[in-house]
Amino acid sequence: MIKYKVIIHIISFLLMMTGLFMLAGIPFSIYYHSNDITAILLSSLITILTGAAGWYLTRHRSSKEVTKREGYIIVTFGWIFISLFGALPFIIHGSIPSFSDAFFETMSGFTTTGATILTNIEAMPYGLLFWRALTQWLGGMGIIVLSIAILPLLGIGGMQLFIAEVPGPTKDKIHPRVSETAKRLWGIYFILTVAETILLFIGGMTFFDAITHSLTTMATGGFSTKNASVGFYSSPFIQYVITFFMFLAGVNFTIHYYALHRRFDFFKHNNEFRFYSMFIIVAAIVVMIVHLPHDLFSFEESFRQSLFHVVSLVTTTGFVTSDYENWAYFSRMIFFILLFIGGCAGSTGGGIKIIRHYLLLKNSLLELKRVVHPRAVIPVRVNGKAVSFEIISNVQAFFIFYILIFVFGSLIMSFMGLDFKTSLGATATCLGNIGPGIGTVGPVANFAHLPEAGKWFLSFLMLLGRLELFTVLIIFSPAFWKR
Amino acid sequence: MIKYKVIIHIISFLLMMTGLFMLAGIPFSIYYHSNDITAILLSSLITILTGAAGWYLTRHRSSKEVTKREGYIIVTFGWIFISLFGALPFIIHGSIPSFSDAFFETMSGFTTTGATILTNIEAMPYGLLFWRALTQWLGGMGIIVLSIAILPLLGIGGMQLFIAEVPGPTKDKIHPRVSETAKRLWGIYFILTVAETILLFIGGMTFFDAITHSLTTMATGGFSTKNASVGFYSSPFIQYVITFFMFLAGVNFTIHYYALHRRFDFFKHNNEFRFYSMFIIVAAIVVMIVHLPHDLFSFEESFRQSLFHVVSLVTTTGFVTSDYENWAYFSRMIFFILLFIGGCAGSTGGGIKIIRHYLLLKNSLLELKRVVHPRAVIPVRVNGKAVSFEIISNVQAFFIFYILIFVFGSLIMSFMGLDFKTSLGATATCLGNIGPGIGTVGPVANFAHLPEAGKWFLSFLMLLGRLELFTVLIIFSPAFWKR
Repeated sequence: MIKYKVIIHIISFLLMMTGLFMLAGIPFSIYYHSNDITAILLSSLITILTGAAGWYLTRHRSSKEVTKREGYIIVTFGWIFISLFGALPFIIHGSIPSFSDAFFETMSGFTTTGATILTNIEAMPYGLLFWRALTQWLGGMGIIVLSIAILPLLGIGGMQLFIAEVPGPTKDKIHPRVSETAKRLWGIYFILTVAETILLFIGGMTFFDAITHSLTTMATGGFSTKNASVGFYSSPFIQYVITFFMFLAGVNFTIHYYALHRRFDFFKHNNEFRFYSMFIIVAAIVVMIVHLPHDLFSFEESFRQSLFHVVSLVTTTGFVTSDYENWAYFSRMIFFILLFIGGCAGSTGGGIKIIRHYLLLKNSLLELKRVVHPRAVIPVRVNGKAVSFEIISNVQAFFIFYILIFVFGSLIMSFMGLDFKTSLGATATCLGNIGPGIGTVGPVANFAHLPEAGKWFLSFLMLLGRLELFTVLIIFSPAFWKR
Repeated sequence: MIKYKVIIHIISFLLMMTGLFMLAGIPFSIYYHSNDITAILLSSLITILTGAAGWYLTRHRSSKEVTKREGYIIVTFGWIFISLFGALPFIIHGSIPSFSDAFFETMSGFTTTGATILTNIEAMPYGLLFWRALTQWLGGMGIIVLSIAILPLLGIGGMQLFIAEVPGPTKDKIHPRVSETAKRLWGIYFILTVAETILLFIGGMTFFDAITHSLTTMATGGFSTKNASVGFYSSPFIQYVITFFMFLAGVNFTIHYYALHRRFDFFKHNNEFRFYSMFIIVAAIVVMIVHLPHDLFSFEESFRQSLFHVVSLVTTTGFVTSDYENWAYFSRMIFFILLFIGGCAGSTGGGIKIIRHYLLLKNSLLELKRVVHPRAVIPVRVNGKAVSFEIISNVQAFFIFYILIFVFGSLIMSFMGLDFKTSLGATATCLGNIGPGIGTVGPVANFAHLPEAGKWFLSFLMLLGRLELFTVLIIFSPAFWKR
């Protein structure tokens, strides 16, 4: 028996929190005399009241215990419900009149994707722009605790890998209790957001722009308050600051935790962190070298632009500083491939994730050895420890599902009349929680022109990608519903 | 120590055989008064003499035993050397003056790919056209014995899967001795080729066209003697005959063997055959339904065209009957995806292959079950038998290598200045041994305009794909060279 009351109780609590956070943009609305205060207040009230009602009606629940089965449902439907209610301010205010559009935008926020249906972002009132940025920051907050503390309990994705990253026995595991872990990592998330805000403000951004861009950088979300995204700011300082914080946001947050405690040995011995850094450096250099002779930019600008986009796409942030659809075919192919990389496990980044690529690559190379020496037992080692067959099998299944969903998604998008490039681009960028795609949903374009059904489908892909596929897929599997 | 003499001895033997087979087209040259007789005779002589010299010089070899290590080298370099010498008739005759082009064409033949650099196929003399078709047929012959008898001994790809298909103990395994197996399967291959030739001749083709198209159908090669490929023949009968034989060529040849011995229970219980048939039927119906409202064809023609192209691409033949680049985005996306399917194991078809998809799909779905029930042991079953972890791991590594090589190949092609679609299309179609791609290498286009380096690289991909990746990759792995 699935305990629906427990599920409703917790989702109701999430709704109340969402309703409260909606109010956070009101100071900006007041300061900038935006006309969105009523809409935000009303939306907040509806959300809080709905949450409170659900919370109250389920107060007498037979058991407070949440098993794995309830866990999958809470996580999946939690994200859906906060997106449904999070869309209210846009709809009630009327700046995004279509429900499909508003839901797409909010799901893109809470999943830290950053794909937008807005054709003129700068025309939005400040309170709503702040809420839009905040959905990403809250989504990122949810993802940190989810990937490091909750999904491992549900047997999904992150933690099996993550355990392999923490050397030595339990004494090294950062505080095992979920709430303690969450608090510490959120502290780091908060500090990094504040630090970036200060630097961007110093760099010349308005305080509003500094805070909204910091919120969406640390979430690897990529919503900007400007139509030209970060390209609006020609200041190299601002672009470098954002590059640096995107890089940090793509790193496993426990590494930040250890770094704060001066445990720098982690950087040295952590395969994922090293692979992540090396990959970004190599990709940026390759793009720069191919890109330079095209004479679009100076040497420094070429370096900055290449690095910026590589970091933005690898970390699944999705900020852009220029329309790279004009660059060489080779650079664009690299950028397309980067849509499939993803940040480190335990970061706010989405996608397939670096550690999975590392594991699969290493295991496949070892398979060659296994064919030559069929009797030898040749395990894959990460951070010096052998990885169990179960984890590799799980990661391989993840990868195959990912490719399968990508292929199926592209098929659906082409069925809706999108051309080849756009179908692949839209699917890859939404499933990977990045933001910009290729074709007609490229770096300086948006998703406004997509058919309504396509927007709903892509919203679903965002959710699927963000929740490491399995969380959502399991709910669709017959095994889940059988007892 | 790798026994180079043994390797040279066997490859020399293959060269002598290649040289002899070259002569097979001369009757057509004489009949049609083609000007290619001297070129063919000279090429044959050079090839046979080179082979004989190598054979003679290595007659005193210390050991005649071929171990796995020599096996990988013989298979890989055997294919390379027969392609190098097989290109001679085209070069000496002057109809393909560029060495890169001639090598590409011959490698495309021996790997049963069917990609061509010829801009006007019909201008070629008959002897050369016959040799071009024969390279595919010989390649297909090589692949049958390779996939069913040799690669399993080398621990690669086919056989592990293949064993799983043969129910019961050894008595059911078709004759275990390599040469016996080869002879029986070649017999079937030969009979089917003759049968198709007769039917095509009855359908109105000239004898020359009937035999060349049969040679390339049964090899799932797809070289045609006409610029418009099978589209040249408007006769529905001819198109249906070719569709049917492409379908047969994509089936595991041991199934044909059992069918000839009236053991039809195999059809019923063979998961791969059923999945293969179902997949083709469903894909063809979907394409037809989406395609019909576009009003290009009548109902019957729509059915025929959809079925033809689905079978052609799934079996990796690559014949075309119309320029489907004009069809709906959705049909074209399906056709692009079909470049990644491939025929059954033990057929002449290339690509990833149906059984691997079946295994991976099933295993991934079971992984959902494993996440829900982490303590349960849930094996994948094929043909009613549990598949070992080693095989699944091998198939998963194969899939990941395939995707990796596809991505890397697309990157290389875009580096050479090809656009996004063409880069993906050319890589997918050559790696999968199909023939037509998308973009500027689409169904009615050819590979002539590609840069020279691109042609060499794609030739390498054809070889890689045809030899199930591992055969070639292992030679590049350090584990292979260490003792």
